Amino acid sequence: MNQIQRLFDIDPWKIATKTLDKQNRRLQESLTSTGNGYMGMRGNFEEHYSGDHHLGTYLAGVWYPDKTRVGWWKNGYPDYFGKVINAVNFFSLTIKVNDTTIDLATIPYEDFYLELDMQTGILTRHFTVKVADATIRFNFERFLSIVKKELAVLKVTAEVITGSATITIDSALDSNVRNEDSNYDELFWEEKASGKENDATYLTVQTVPNNFGIERFSVTALMKHDQKSLATTPAPLAISDAFYYEAKAGETISFEKRIVVLTSRDIPEENQVTKAVELMTAYDQSFATLKAEQVEAWKKRWELADVAINGDPAAQQGIRFNLFQLFSTYYGDDERLNIGPKGFTGEKYGGATYWDTEAYAVPLYLALAKPDVTKNLLKYRHNQLPEAHINAQKQGLAGALYPMVTFTGIECHNEWEITFEEIHRNGSIAYAIYNYTNYTGDETYLQKEGLEVLTAISRFWADRVHYSKRQQKYMIHGVTGPNEYENNINNNWYTNILAAWCLKYTLTSYHRLKDHTTVTISKTEQDKWEDIIDNMYLPADEELGIFVQHDTFLDKDLMPVTDLDSAELPLNQHWSWDKILRSCFIKQADVLQGIYYFSDQFTLEEKRKNFNFYEPMTVHESSLSASIHAILAAELGMEEKALEMYERTARLDLDNYNNDTEDGLHITSMTGSWLAIVQGFAQMKTDHETLRFAPFLPSKWESYAFHINYRGRLLAVTVTKEAVTLKLVLGEALAVSLYDESYTLVDEITAAMNN
Amino acid sequence: MNQIQRLFDIDPWKIATKTLDKQNRRLQESLTSTGNGYMGMRGNFEEHYSGDHHLGTYLAGVWYPDKTRVGWWKNGYPDYFGKVINAVNFFSLTIKVNDTTIDLATIPYEDFYLELDMQTGILTRHFTVKVADATIRFNFERFLSIVKKELAVLKVTAEVITGSATITIDSALDSNVRNEDSNYDELFWEEKASGKENDATYLTVQTVPNNFGIERFSVTALMKHDQKSLATTPAPLAISDAFYYEAKAGETISFEKRIVVLTSRDIPEENQVTKAVELMTAYDQSFATLKAEQVEAWKKRWELADVAINGDPAAQQGIRFNLFQLFSTYYGDDERLNIGPKGFTGEKYGGATYWDTEAYAVPLYLALAKPDVTKNLLKYRHNQLPEAHINAQKQGLAGALYPMVTFTGIECHNEWEITFEEIHRNGSIAYAIYNYTNYTGDETYLQKEGLEVLTAISRFWADRVHYSKRQQKYMIHGVTGPNEYENNINNNWYTNILAAWCLKYTLTSYHRLKDHTTVTISKTEQDKWEDIIDNMYLPADEELGIFVQHDTFLDKDLMPVTDLDSAELPLNQHWSWDKILRSCFIKQADVLQGIYYFSDQFTLEEKRKNFNFYEPMTVHESSLSASIHAILAAELGMEEKALEMYERTARLDLDNYNNDTEDGLHITSMTGSWLAIVQGFAQMKTDHETLRFAPFLPSKWESYAFHINYRGRLLAVTVTKEAVTLKLVLGEALAVSLYDESYTLVDEITAAMNN
Repeated sequence: MNQIQRLFDIDPWKIATKTLDKQNRRLQESLTSTGNGYMGMRGNFEEHYSGDHHLGTYLAGVWYPDKTRVGWWKNGYPDYFGKVINAVNFFSLTIKVNDTTIDLATIPYEDFYLELDMQTGILTRHFTVKVADATIRFNFERFLSIVKKELAVLKVTAEVITGSATITIDSALDSNVRNEDSNYDELFWEEKASGKENDATYLTVQTVPNNFGIERFSVTALMKHDQKSLATTPAPLAISDAFYYEAKAGETISFEKRIVVLTSRDIPEENQVTKAVELMTAYDQSFATLKAEQVEAWKKRWELADVAINGDPAAQQGIRFNLFQLFSTYYGDDERLNIGPKGFTGEKYGGATYWDTEAYAVPLYLALAKPDVTKNLLKYRHNQLPEAHINAQKQGLAGALYPMVTFTGIECHNEWEITFEEIHRNGSIAYAIYNYTNYTGDETYLQKEGLEVLTAISRFWADRVHYSKRQQKYMIHGVTGPNEYENNINNNWYTNILAAWCLKYTLTSYHRLKDHTTVTISKTEQDKWEDIIDNMYLPADEELGIFVQHDTFLDKDLMPVTDLDSAELPLNQHWSWDKILRSCFIKQADVLQGIYYFSDQFTLEEKRKNFNFYEPMTVHESSLSASIHAILAAELGMEEKALEMYERTARLDLDNYNNDTEDGLHITSMTGSWLAIVQGFAQMKTDHETLRFAPFLPSKWESYAFHINYRGRLLAVTVTKEAVTLKLVLGEALAVSLYDESYTLVDEITAAMNN
Repeated sequence: MNQIQRLFDIDPWKIATKTLDKQNRRLQESLTSTGNGYMGMRGNFEEHYSGDHHLGTYLAGVWYPDKTRVGWWKNGYPDYFGKVINAVNFFSLTIKVNDTTIDLATIPYEDFYLELDMQTGILTRHFTVKVADATIRFNFERFLSIVKKELAVLKVTAEVITGSATITIDSALDSNVRNEDSNYDELFWEEKASGKENDATYLTVQTVPNNFGIERFSVTALMKHDQKSLATTPAPLAISDAFYYEAKAGETISFEKRIVVLTSRDIPEENQVTKAVELMTAYDQSFATLKAEQVEAWKKRWELADVAINGDPAAQQGIRFNLFQLFSTYYGDDERLNIGPKGFTGEKYGGATYWDTEAYAVPLYLALAKPDVTKNLLKYRHNQLPEAHINAQKQGLAGALYPMVTFTGIECHNEWEITFEEIHRNGSIAYAIYNYTNYTGDETYLQKEGLEVLTAISRFWADRVHYSKRQQKYMIHGVTGPNEYENNINNNWYTNILAAWCLKYTLTSYHRLKDHTTVTISKTEQDKWEDIIDNMYLPADEELGIFVQHDTFLDKDLMPVTDLDSAELPLNQHWSWDKILRSCFIKQADVLQGIYYFSDQFTLEEKRKNFNFYEPMTVHESSLSASIHAILAAELGMEEKALEMYERTARLDLDNYNNDTEDGLHITSMTGSWLAIVQGFAQMKTDHETLRFAPFLPSKWESYAFHINYRGRLLAVTVTKEAVTLKLVLGEALAVSLYDESYTLVDEITAAMNN
């Protein structure tokens, strides 16, 4: 097993510590990130900090097309790499006490405390410093409003405990920010304007020009303080307001800063200052009032979404952290957005949208949000169908290929083994349509947009297969499966079965809905697709009773992860890429991902054999791995493994399992802990017409409970050591299955635990 | 077949044209490149040219470690990418006539003529322009001395035919040069000094700093003219001398420029100006004298190396062009150097050294130079053995892995499928040791340096294989063979057979020489190697009677190249990379490369079956492909194919077969046409103790003739329609085999043609 690294205390609702860990400041920053779906930031200190850290503020949908024509080029590569860019640092303060700059990297301090309250989204911090003869306790409190998305709020107090102090605060909007991953330390911003308007101070910046015809984004940040500044000083790409205080022992000074941030995604640059001033006036409330509103809004979110676990505080903290960060990233408010892999917590992995959304996020949003939220995620893909056609054309193929990484629908990632070969992503786009339709019972999307998307995806698959005369089978050569620790493999079982399923689901849906759709699939095309469905090559080994990951997997030197020295883990930080590729070690569920998708097609025995064969070789170095394994282990009654996998997904970032959380959180995999509990421990299955449950409770837990939306109902599920209770909180009676017994849920059903 | 594009006239010794092809100026420049092993340049015009072109001057061994940490990173990648950099443009002139700048892109001209004389290495050009009332004929003549390597010489005349003209010439040393392939338009040079010394004008520049601890190179260029300049004007990174002339109809002005170029590879920066002045004085001869010396020196080279072909002027021109460019790049004078893929003709493909040297260049230099030249090439690798160990360590492997691309021995290329996987290169390093030892009969290198290199390479292979329990064979997974149109394949037949051969050759040599070597190979190690040799998996198909390129090759959609639309060729410019990878089309000899290496292990029937199976699927888009096919086709008596392949290798650049010669010439593959004639048409074989020949003559040729050095002798081989003549020009009597008949060659042998 990897070493875990836990910087914060175990607490059901808080991410808190009394230690400023300078060695791991980046990790602390990632874990104290906050966001409101519109903007977000790492848990950077407001005041100057000269130690190692990673300053990062990000605005949803604001990006830059970076050059990719570096090094070696492959025909077909995209022209640019879409990059999440670091934006204006608007909480920035420079604080001096008796002429000494407060910088926790260089001055002594005591009584440090840092806390992110997941119940409210409020980040607080305090510490005490002694400067000359003055002892001062600083307190910081800030949040990004989830009620007023453009608004960020900060309150600082400084209590003089002994001595006397002169305190100056320089409060800035600072766009001198750079991406850590940028080539050649580029600056992505240029200044358009700065100044004062109506007692507030603004800065307008725009992304630098690009050669790819991609829109340039303008951003205006406007700040207002609870007191007048002594002076306002512009600087290149920045502007600041100065404040001065004198205080004696027993006195406390207080400082409040509100910031409104607008982007050209919503407001044209020329109107931004006016609009920002207007919003600033509209949002002119005290810190206390704004905070109360924030607390109330998060409370509503938690009422629906919370998963309560009794008896295991670490597990409890983990799932709340995941849900908190997920909703901080995306709450379905803006259909132009999707869920980026690092959300607002880092800039690694460019691009806003990965297949993670369809494969891992859609099931959660289906259960925890109105159907429209998921429908928006699906529409996002339908809107990008023309671009998906372009992606396929660039590869010389028919139909549509959804991108691996994108902002606009155009592929913007350039590793050939991913860009060109990790085409299973196309299958998950189709699967999400099935998932939505099946979960909600709403066929309107399938009928219209859905069939268009499905048909285009199927045309891609039908062109991408080839017929092996030697084996008399259709094959898919040269792919990378979900296990990215193998590249350019032939006949990845997962990809092949998913491709055949896409063709079949498209045809079935087409036949059922063809009187209601504008899509036409010719007879010739249908026949061809049927032939592919019937003759797709699906590698299997009868002796071992398993599906084979790809053609030559069984020729490898097969061994369990436990044979490795733990110092070699994670492999991707210790092994050369080629060594990883030719090893048997698996990054994330691959065959098992397919078994998860098509769960009802396989017997328990098949599931068990494949799980027992593949899981021991799986290093789970993708954040997306553990959840699928937790779900399958739960179904197979492997309690210990299920719990291990649950912990790994729930506390992936909190315990830094993969030693890379300093770069940012694994946002898209944060649905995993919820999936593990709901689809795993509770065994909720939605693939048949009747909603089914067959819960089990890990023996070290006292109970767990959660809510789900399902076809217009709100259900509460509680699992204790003794009993399972399903409660219909809202909506009409519903047929359900519990441990394979059929019920009509009118009010509440309780069944004894089947442990 | 690809379209060919022929810009220059067919001529046995000249590359000449009367057309300035502005659309294809880059291609013209590539084809008129000149070099002297120490420095070289594309055929840029001396005077200003504002049309599309690619300015390029390169200095042997002067390079820059460029950043590679862009985009996506793989563990194990090198820290930097070694880049051939564009250096000071020292022939630079700005010529004005009656205040009009002479720029053939913008002003009318007549009587254009451009000629590279391969017999002498002299580049000449003339054209006539009409400016205002003056008609002037300009004539340019220049060369890089192969006698005085630091010296470049230029003579310009301007004959006023009608009217009268004021002519100004601004003659510069200009280091404001950039690489076309640089990221972000970087400038790789900074100025150190410029000025006048002893009537000559100098510029000293240094490569900009780097973060990789790689030496910075300083370069001084010193120019002297045959007349005093009116003024010397420094500019950033440049300096120039001004000249002024007035001339009337019938008068001719003449201008001579000599340049001495020194680099810190030989002379420390602080001594460069002094040393350059010293050399300038020593080289103070007239253009005519220096030219006569140049002509004589090239004549000597040709006496040994020329291959005379009668009856096919295009074929004749092709091989001379190749030999000319090859010797312009490398003539074995400096053991710190190797043969870069573009020589001095372009900057694409960084790095000085590829496996091309060992596989394709060594056989030629063995025959056309003293054994020391080849020994230097082998020593170059031995000197880099510590770095090769580092390369292997970075991949977590024992022994030594020679780099794919390097300046220092450290790998500096970062495509994982090449860097990590194209490991067959290691086999060619070993093969060259065998080749040298076997060809020269000199075991001194093998005994000392050779066995060290071989043992280290063998240790790499022994660690790189794995044992497949299922197949009970040793396998090599995850490689790229010589056919780079497939990546990350398993059990590439060529790599596997080469690895086994390396182990065997190392062991055999060790057993024979172990009393004379310091190398120790333990009994355990020997046993392990023997086991690998005995149980190496070599994929073959009995039914087809072929060796199989790799595990799943036969599952592909197999079809001949002739089934493709010719508009799709070359594939690498028309197909997306993934489409190329999963197609059956082969970039260059792969299985056939192995059959070429180990020719005596295979029957003619085996050769024929494999040739007939693979060649039709081969697109020859590597410049290294055609020669091997020519050799095998010749052996199989397939005259038409052999000739087609000869033409393709001999005229690859002259006819721009792969539509990429505008980037520079394919230097390392230029040995191919010589190999095709000597090892192919003449069937010279050196793999047994007796030197063997079995020539055939393409029916459209009248005759061909060449010389070779062999074990202290100089042989002349002449093949006509009637007879083959072997003549011993120098050295002791030699046992030879001609058409499998044994002879002792004392003076001359003639045998009737075996056609």
